[in-house]
Amino acid sequence: MPAKASKVTIADIAAEAGVSVPTVSKVMNGRSDVAPTTRQRVEEIIRRHGYQRRTDERYRKSNLLELMFHELESAWALEIIRGVEKVAGENGMAVVLSESQGRLRPGQSWLENVLARRPVGVIAVFSDLGADQLAKLRARDIPVVVVDPVGEPTPEMHSIGATNWQGGLTATRHLIELGHKRIAMIGGPQNVLCSRARVDGYRAALETAGLTVDPELMRHGDFHVEAGHKQMLALLALENRPTAVFAGSDLQAVGVYEAARAAGLRIPDDLSVIGFDDLPVARWVGPPLTTVRQPLQEMAAAGARMAITLAGGGDMEHHRVELATSLVVRSSTAPYTGR
Amino acid sequence: MPAKASKVTIADIAAEAGVSVPTVSKVMNGRSDVAPTTRQRVEEIIRRHGYQRRTDERYRKSNLLELMFHELESAWALEIIRGVEKVAGENGMAVVLSESQGRLRPGQSWLENVLARRPVGVIAVFSDLGADQLAKLRARDIPVVVVDPVGEPTPEMHSIGATNWQGGLTATRHLIELGHKRIAMIGGPQNVLCSRARVDGYRAALETAGLTVDPELMRHGDFHVEAGHKQMLALLALENRPTAVFAGSDLQAVGVYEAARAAGLRIPDDLSVIGFDDLPVARWVGPPLTTVRQPLQEMAAAGARMAITLAGGGDMEHHRVELATSLVVRSSTAPYTGR
Repeated sequence: MPAKASKVTIADIAAEAGVSVPTVSKVMNGRSDVAPTTRQRVEEIIRRHGYQRRTDERYRKSNLLELMFHELESAWALEIIRGVEKVAGENGMAVVLSESQGRLRPGQSWLENVLARRPVGVIAVFSDLGADQLAKLRARDIPVVVVDPVGEPTPEMHSIGATNWQGGLTATRHLIELGHKRIAMIGGPQNVLCSRARVDGYRAALETAGLTVDPELMRHGDFHVEAGHKQMLALLALENRPTAVFAGSDLQAVGVYEAARAAGLRIPDDLSVIGFDDLPVARWVGPPLTTVRQPLQEMAAAGARMAITLAGGGDMEHHRVELATSLVVRSSTAPYTGR
Repeated sequence: MPAKASKVTIADIAAEAGVSVPTVSKVMNGRSDVAPTTRQRVEEIIRRHGYQRRTDERYRKSNLLELMFHELESAWALEIIRGVEKVAGENGMAVVLSESQGRLRPGQSWLENVLARRPVGVIAVFSDLGADQLAKLRARDIPVVVVDPVGEPTPEMHSIGATNWQGGLTATRHLIELGHKRIAMIGGPQNVLCSRARVDGYRAALETAGLTVDPELMRHGDFHVEAGHKQMLALLALENRPTAVFAGSDLQAVGVYEAARAAGLRIPDDLSVIGFDDLPVARWVGPPLTTVRQPLQEMAAAGARMAITLAGGGDMEHHRVELATSLVVRSSTAPYTGR
């Protein structure tokens, strides 16, 4: 992070870049009438000096917090929105929602719109902002906090997550303690970090219990209902089917329920199922779903608070915060009865 | 609606109000340093003349659409958000979310923040804006469209809803056609218009089929899961319990499922249940819920399009639009077998 005591002025930056003061202002304000190479040079100098804009100048920020999703698909998104909305309300701010239409990296028009809106900060959910995009936001003093980063966060990126590895371990150990040995796992997308961590926790639980990891029982979906349904159908078609499934997400667990129902299997008598997230739907399905609670609202709130702190020139002790997951036992898991 | 061809200037308004031009500007820009009586007088004159601000002046609007909820409680809200977000994206706009913390009429601070943000328009969901609040927004050319108004919409208020009465009729007729005679209804809050319409549709279906409306079988909740659960417990305690329930909302139907499960009743064998909304959860519960589909995303999108049209000075042919509901038959309703 740039030093807070930096005393560099816009004039200094203009002199160093060999451009006029208005040009530096234009870059800082995200205007498009600046040549790309000039913009890049000025941004690089601003970044190096860690220029901090004074809050009383006329280019001050709006009172908006920008919340960016790769998709507004499920109740998962609503939990995040509620967490950010709560912190925004406490700070007299409003939340702007944007969606990158399913792409993990938002497009150029998104960035231009954000720069024009001058939000206090950006909370990017399940997203993978490019280095150039991060640099442009940083050059305008707009801090970015990523909730559940998709890729490997760089050391300087601020991010919030849950203890996914520990959660995967806990879910799988719960099934092992119930006596299950044929335990399947349906992970999320293989390129998504939080999913990899859950899968690794699953593997660690099996291995430390002396159980073999059967590649046939390891599947991948996209965290949504249909994927859980499809992968469970494949698992049920195996000669030696699993007696328990760690579904990787609550929505995939809902898909597992559908597949089990269609096959005439009773949950938990014939098949134990455990989810991940603890969305409201986990309480509503029949039978209520045992799951690993991920504190989504708290994660989003922590991300929003981090962005506001950074925008105020504050430092964070840690760049990466992981909130704890916890096991919520309901009625979809039962002891292995031996077949 | 004000005439579009109105030629009144700020100077005319200032002269008529007996104040300076800057004072009129302050009122139009929502500044707080104007005496309340002056503000009121100026707003009244602006309203009467239907002054239309030119879009090229320096007080032009942001590219934000303001979406206001009374609460961000359920998947219901997410459907609305997605509909507005879609239209915003198509128009190069972003969506600002605000929440009135469960109150049906948002507070003064909400209004001040909205006036400062100068959105293209306001989409207020399930809300009951006061006449003074509507007047202030109108004075600044910020159109308001209400989705599912709580109270009686005034003739000049723009609003979007669903055919709630028809939906209530359809739901109840479906149960009557299956042979049920003891049909309960769990409505939403009694002061909420869309709920009243559903209840009236229920009553009309019973009466036109020659069935008596038993007041014991008519209950009210708040559209959420817990209310459905509580009201169903009361219905199950009746000496002559219903054989079918129109739950008023999908979430109340989920609560009905819970109460039925606890009482050892099988759905649909022992109890037929029909919901209202067709949220994703309706497909996920076991058994999948028969319900009346309310096109929430389409309603929200229509509301956003209406706000944008009005902001552009366009006229709407109708101030109130109701989109059609439709019956979605799944597995929670079955013929009455006679007990």
